[in-house]
This record gives sequence, structure tokens and C-alpha cells, in this order.
Amino acid sequence: MNHFFKVKTLEQVEALADQFSCVSVEKVPITDSFFRILAKDIDATHDIPGFRRATMDGYALHSGSTFGASESNPAWLEVIGSISMGESPSFSIQSGQAAKISTGGMLPDGADSVVMVEHTEVIGGGSAALTGADRDKSAVSYSPTVEIYKSVAPLQNVIDKDEDFKKGDKILKSGTQLRPQEVGLAAALGICELPVYKIPKVGIISTGDEIVPIDEIPQLGKIRDINSYTLAGLITEAGAIPIQYGIIKDNEEALLNACLKALDETDMVLISGGSSVGNRDFTVNVLSSLKDTEILVHGISISPGKPTILAKSGKKPIWGLPGHVVSAMVVFKIVVLPFLRQIQGLSSCKTNDSSILIPAILTKNVASAQGRTDFIRVRFVKQLDINLKYKYQIFAEPILGKSGLIRTMVMADGLLEIGENVEGVERGDLVNIIPLRTLD
Amino acid sequence: MNHFFKVKTLEQVEALADQFSCVSVEKVPITDSFFRILAKDIDATHDIPGFRRATMDGYALHSGSTFGASESNPAWLEVIGSISMGESPSFSIQSGQAAKISTGGMLPDGADSVVMVEHTEVIGGGSAALTGADRDKSAVSYSPTVEIYKSVAPLQNVIDKDEDFKKGDKILKSGTQLRPQEVGLAAALGICELPVYKIPKVGIISTGDEIVPIDEIPQLGKIRDINSYTLAGLITEAGAIPIQYGIIKDNEEALLNACLKALDETDMVLISGGSSVGNRDFTVNVLSSLKDTEILVHGISISPGKPTILAKSGKKPIWGLPGHVVSAMVVFKIVVLPFLRQIQGLSSCKTNDSSILIPAILTKNVASAQGRTDFIRVRFVKQLDINLKYKYQIFAEPILGKSGLIRTMVMADGLLEIGENVEGVERGDLVNIIPLRTLD
Repeated sequence: MNHFFKVKTLEQVEALADQFSCVSVEKVPITDSFFRILAKDIDATHDIPGFRRATMDGYALHSGSTFGASESNPAWLEVIGSISMGESPSFSIQSGQAAKISTGGMLPDGADSVVMVEHTEVIGGGSAALTGADRDKSAVSYSPTVEIYKSVAPLQNVIDKDEDFKKGDKILKSGTQLRPQEVGLAAALGICELPVYKIPKVGIISTGDEIVPIDEIPQLGKIRDINSYTLAGLITEAGAIPIQYGIIKDNEEALLNACLKALDETDMVLISGGSSVGNRDFTVNVLSSLKDTEILVHGISISPGKPTILAKSGKKPIWGLPGHVVSAMVVFKIVVLPFLRQIQGLSSCKTNDSSILIPAILTKNVASAQGRTDFIRVRFVKQLDINLKYKYQIFAEPILGKSGLIRTMVMADGLLEIGENVEGVERGDLVNIIPLRTLD
Repeated sequence: MNHFFKVKTLEQVEALADQFSCVSVEKVPITDSFFRILAKDIDATHDIPGFRRATMDGYALHSGSTFGASESNPAWLEVIGSISMGESPSFSIQSGQAAKISTGGMLPDGADSVVMVEHTEVIGGGSAALTGADRDKSAVSYSPTVEIYKSVAPLQNVIDKDEDFKKGDKILKSGTQLRPQEVGLAAALGICELPVYKIPKVGIISTGDEIVPIDEIPQLGKIRDINSYTLAGLITEAGAIPIQYGIIKDNEEALLNACLKALDETDMVLISGGSSVGNRDFTVNVLSSLKDTEILVHGISISPGKPTILAKSGKKPIWGLPGHVVSAMVVFKIVVLPFLRQIQGLSSCKTNDSSILIPAILTKNVASAQGRTDFIRVRFVKQLDINLKYKYQIFAEPILGKSGLIRTMVMADGLLEIGENVEGVERGDLVNIIPLRTLD
């Protein structure tokens, strides 16, 4: 027997995400860890950079030796050596002394700052000044004098030994996505492998007697399978692996077998089509008949996407998604994605305000039914802003069209969410858009 | 002999991108085409969906038969059949007739609309009404009557045969990035393989006597190689393949050989470190000594990142990037990326206003030198907005810290660009932030 919708709100559905646990952990070389989710807190095992480094080419010295120095009243310091790159200086600096240093070089004991080469001039000693024309790579063994035209403060033009990270600092939290800079930080600590959550697999089952594989020419009345591909793309974009289980005819036994196989082989299953309450909508029956499976949701107060099913089979979520192409994509982005984030181990999925939205000015009035959250496809139109600081203003133009039209998603740059207690938004309103584009 | 900086503006550098041509084209299965760049225009080879489809469960009919129908004054229509899913109906509809249809079903000739099952009731004929309780899957052979309580307009609750795409429509342009919906559209047309630009390879050479591989414990004065990893991550994020050529000591011959190998094997080369004008900065000499190579840029009026070199070797760009971790990342994002987009074949890289920026309110005054474009690291702070429509307001908090500190990039969510003619931005100003986060 079919159920009728017992519609839940978006918030009620989102609150169910923490019923599902995340995938297990593996270690990967850091070159394979980009955009993976870290599975363990990482603390700094030592200071970084570990020694006091120059950030400029110039002279290492004690800042006190330069106080009061100016163009008209330079400080005169004795150049007692030159610091080889990558080596620990064998000498220390006293007041009144300086040592030639390049960017990244290690300051000698006694030196607390670097004066830029542009603010110095070597006099006497017969050596060339330290400029671009100076190609002498040998260590400086003479003791010429350097004139300093500008005073420096303590720690000026240096990075102190624990200025980047201090031993014991909590630097990366479990559940963080590893951007290039987080991986760079691991590299700095000498971490060659990182513990990350495994990449989840997501199964896709397409249903419907009218659906044919894309390499077939559909007979009149049939259409090619689009949702297997749009969903695979959304899964890929989210950093998971899509597994396609093909097209299942409207037949409960065939769908049951496909679900069992997909549940066995993947971490989450999507069934496209047949999720409503009509006489051809078998998904809820099939899910009800699965062992150890509970229907958590049938019907969500969103548009498009109302006929959505969420079941918990063992510890895995299995979804019935609407068959309309736009509805299936919107439900994935809005409803399914937070659950996938949970399975991936991303910690920020637990806070629902984490998405980056693009503010834009609406170009048309959009009405919305109360008691339902609407997601309106919009196209961005950019207009140069007269004020140079802002570069341009983004306008959001609603795209009209039925939720069965893939064209409307191809035109769309984002989705406008209109909350369930809002009757509509007006032309000229500043709205926040959920972006649907990734590059550029 | 070293050069001195002949500083170019960011705009002058960006204008050089079209000197480089894009990679060659390959065909890939559409399941491998997500986020690749399309290399050919695609036109619709036929109408989509190709027939008039129902978007609701209900009755297919001629809209004229329902005009004036209401709860108190229903229209009575003869049910002459039921349409099997995925099949072309063998009958046509006359005025006063209707046929049972499910979502996605093909309308018979003569029917121009569908009335939702919720607005109907079958009377007489002994059959159950078309509700969730109706499990009869066999074709309807009797002729009961259906009461229609609501009129429908022509084409209501249907998608017309060419409503998604019309044969001959230009649907996808060469140079477009293929999102899930663009691939879905190809699926709808039965395109199983797509012509896309090859994935470019980008070589990374790290230089400096003070740099050691990450699996070594650095002696005092040395640090581990960070830039090879941060740059590899940025290249991966951009959809290209990073190839690491290891660490080259400060030695012109070794660097020359590494450049020759990398230029031979990749589409673009990045050299980290040694790009300035000091006596240890060999990059520009090595690039000058390469055959068929022209130095296009040495020095850009940006901060961080001024000591950046761009050379054209044959048809390939080869970059000298500053060694400071933050500078190298910022230069990649701001300067190198548009060139990579050009090589990837992405057409929108030719318009510089295509990036999505996040408007935010600045929390502190930030000064900036005139004649130089500054990129300030910022952290997002979100605050719930009282107005429900907007969800929250984003604030941008500048991160202070030297450009040698990877920590500051780990803290950062984005970059604030301050144009060369702007003296600074003030607390409370609305600014546009270049995002540095990808997920969530």
C-alpha cells in the first residue's frame, strides 16, 4: 500500500543528517590529499620556521645599531661576514656589526632584524655594493663598512623562529577540508601522509518504463536517461564517487534487487523517479520492504522537490528523488548534500550557515507560497559599478520554466531560496544566491 | 647580468594571456567530462523531449473540454483509455474525452493539457478512482466518466515536444565548462562522447639552497619545501595536472636543465624562488639563456608578488614566482590562473570580470600604496541578519602577517583586492572578496 505525503520542513529533514555516521579513515600521500577531509587533529610538532629568517636581501644586525640612522646621518657598521643560504652562521653579531644576508637566510645570534639592501651602501674594502650587479658568490672574508640609511625595529624584515607556528599549536582540526595551504602546512611539518576520510561511493539508480540508455534512439514516448548523468556530476563535484546502476523498469522486484546491490556496494544510494504517491511510484514500497530500513521522510515542503523520500537502511541513507531533471538536481544540492558532507566527515556540514552565498539584486518580483521553501533558478547579470572599489554589481534574473526542462538549469548560475514564511521577494531586493557554477 | 625590475601593471600582464594557445582536443565519454572544457559548439540534433509529455499524474484531455469547470459545476468527460508509460498512445482524444496518464507519459493526439488527478473524480464504470490506493496496472478498457473540478489552460501540466530544446538550437558553446547540467543535456541528445580540451600539465620547480624535501629533517638554517605542494594544490583545484620536478639548488646549470625537461614535458612551468633581482636570483638569467625564449614581464605592481617573472618559451609560459609561500599562492591565483584558463580553452578567461566575488563588510581600515594593487588576506565572519530574506551578513576581517607565513593563508577565506588608484579602504566599506575556499 502506498503512503500519502507526511510533509516535513527542510529544517526537520536537515536535523536528521547526524543519524548517519561518516566513512572510515585511510592514510594518503599528501600529494593525493588535496580537497580531502582531514580525519585527525594535527598539532605542530616543532616551531616553524624553526630559526630566525630574513624576509629581505640586506644586512642582518642588531636593531639597536641602527637607531636614529637616516640619509643625512647614516649608521656605520662593520661587515663581519656573509651568511650562506641554508646554513647556520658560525659567528654571532655584536652591536656595531652586520652580516650580509639573502632572503630566507638564517640570522646569526645577536641579530634581531634585517635592513634592506636598498637602504645601505658598502664603503671601503674594495668590494662591490650588494646590488643586482654583484655577482660575487664567495663568502665575504674582508671587513668593509656598510652605511645604514634607515633604522629598523626589532624583528623587522625577519620571521621569528616560531612566528609561523609554535610547537604544540593546534593547527588543523579533524573534519577540515584540505585546501592547498593546509597541505602546504603539513609539508612544512614534514608530514608526508595524512589521515583522511575515505571517498564515499554514491549509487545511482534511474527508474521508469519511459527511460532508455543514452546510446539508444528513444521510440516515441520514451526519453533518454538524464538524471544518472546530472547526479553523477553533482556527486563528482561534491568529492564523492558516483556508481551508476543503470535503468530499472517500473517493477518492484527489479528495483528491490538494484537497491540491495547498491546498498551493499556504496555508502549512499539515490533512486531517481517513482518517489511520489501515484500508482506508478514504487520507491516507497520497495524501501519499506527492505530489511532493517526505516522511512524517515516522505515529502518535504520545498519546491521543486516535494516528492522526496529519505530512508535509513542499516546505517546508510537511501533517497527517492523526483524524476524531473531540475527537481532531482535541486534536491541533491539542497537536501542530499548536507548528508553527503556528514558521510564525508566534513565538520562544517553540522552548521547549516556555512555555504557561501552570492548577494545579488533581484530583477523581477517572485511570488512564493507560504509554508513552503521555494528554490528559484536565476541567471547572473553583471553590471560595472561606478564605484571602483566594488568592480561590479550582480543582478539575479529569475529563469521561468518547468522543472522538467534541463535547459533552465543550463541557463542558471544559481538558486534563490525563498523561506517558508516569506510570501515573495520583490524586484530590487538584495537576495543571497546559492551558486551553481564552479570555475571562473 | 641581472635585470632590474621594469614593473608592469596587473592589467598589462593580463593582456598578455592571449599570446598563448590552448591545448589540443580529445574525445572523452560523458561520464569523464564533468568540469572539463568543451572544445566544439553543440547544436540540438532533434527536439527535446520530442513529444508532448505530462508533468503531473491525471487525465490528458483537450483544454477546451474543461473551460468553466469548477467544484460546483464540474465538466464530465468520457475516459477512453489509459496511457502506458513510455509508449505512444494508439488512440486520439476528441472534445469531451480524456485518458488516464502518469507523469512523464506521452499525450495522445488531440490532447493539449493534463488535469491533475487531485482535481478529478471517476464516477460510474465500477473502477477505483486514480488514487494512491489504485494498484490496477492493466490498461483500462471500460469507458467510465471522470468529473473535472478545475479548468486547465492549453499546455498546462505538459512539456511540449520542443519546449526544452528545438532541433537546430545552439545549445552549448565551445569553451564552456561542463557542469552536471551541461553533461545532462548532452545525455538527453544521446551524445555519449564529448570533444574537450586536454587537461594541461603544469611543471613545478622549487629552487633554493635552503630548501629540503619534506621527508628530510631540516638542519638549522634550512626549511622544508612548501611551495611545491601549495602550487600543486592550486593547479589541481584549477583542473590541471601538477608535475613536481623537485628542488633545484641555486645553480644556473641545474636550473637550466630542469627548465628544459619541464618545458618538454608540460604545458606551463612554474619556478618558485629566485625571481627577484638579488645576487641569488638566477631565474631571470636562466630564462634569458633558454633558446627561443622572451622575457615578457619582470616585476608586477602588486603586493605581495612584485618579483614575478613571465617568459614565453616557444609557445609556453614559464613563470618565476616569489619564494614566500603567501606571495607564490597569491600570484598563482591572481596572475597565473588566467593564463592557465587560456591554455585550458576556457572562453570566459578572456573576460576579466568573470570571477564570482563575495561582497562583505570590512572590519578594519586597510591602507594601501598608490600605484600598486594590494591583495589582503581576509577571514570571513558571519553574523545572522535580522531580515530573514538575507540569512546572514558576511564581514571580512583582514589578517595581518608577513607573506612568508603559511599560517595566514590557512586562516584566510579570501583575498581583498585594493586597486592601484585606491589609497585604502575603510572599516564598514562594502568590499568584494576573492574566495579561497571551495567546499561548504
